[in-house]
Amino acid sequence: MKKKPTRVKFGYTGIRVRDLDGAIDFFTKYLGMKLRSRVKADWSKGEFANLVSKGGEHWLEINWYSDNSPIAVPFREGEELDHLGFEVDDFEGLLKKLSDAGYPTRIGPVRMGVWEVAFVQGFENIWLDIYKIRRKARKRRSKS
Amino acid sequence: MKKKPTRVKFGYTGIRVRDLDGAIDFFTKYLGMKLRSRVKADWSKGEFANLVSKGGEHWLEINWYSDNSPIAVPFREGEELDHLGFEVDDFEGLLKKLSDAGYPTRIGPVRMGVWEVAFVQGFENIWLDIYKIRRKARKRRSKS
Repeated sequence: MKKKPTRVKFGYTGIRVRDLDGAIDFFTKYLGMKLRSRVKADWSKGEFANLVSKGGEHWLEINWYSDNSPIAVPFREGEELDHLGFEVDDFEGLLKKLSDAGYPTRIGPVRMGVWEVAFVQGFENIWLDIYKIRRKARKRRSKS
Repeated sequence: MKKKPTRVKFGYTGIRVRDLDGAIDFFTKYLGMKLRSRVKADWSKGEFANLVSKGGEHWLEINWYSDNSPIAVPFREGEELDHLGFEVDDFEGLLKKLSDAGYPTRIGPVRMGVWEVAFVQGFENIWLDIYKIRRKARKRRSKS
């Protein structure tokens, strides 16, 4: 009998921040995410929060570790997390809202085909790709 | 008239690696992802690849930048990317496959309620949470 192939799914993205409350505030207030759960983890001497977008099932896990966490090294900025991508309908509106709150657009906005793209330096310098895809509108069937 | 609220969706996660070919190989061979596109970007003097899981629409963007990229600072390891989470049906099988390939389980496996969880140090030291959720099987309606 043929063996069933293993199924694997990219389920969530875990980032680490220094200020968990501030990060939850940022992603819920400006990026429209909903806080699904928040958990104090004794085993890691840390705390994490899970956030989701409406209509999206991939969640963002935001981790915070205390200085004496047995699993975390001291925080330092690095390059592995290049950026997080957020699709938006009101492109200019969101860029303005972020900019007004102190998170300016650093690259763009640029138009590439059906894409509008801008890179914003967000909370704790986490880079965001704010983008809009101009999907072709379907032709309406004319009444005749 | 009431203004429609802005809709924002967490669409993708962009990571940065030093070896793009190696990273594509890792995520397709061990984490079951499919390469959807690969793009050389003149404006960034870099290259990126987009990968998706079967049944998942949130994509993983893997970025590589040349040393003379106008938008990227030199690579250094840091803590912003805590880990990437992959849900799997064959939990033990995937951990063994990764371990055999030189990517050992560093924390766990542990059982927490319906979750089985293990942390693996993957390609270029990117941490992975390999997890399985033991969802309750639906009761079959008995024929009577």
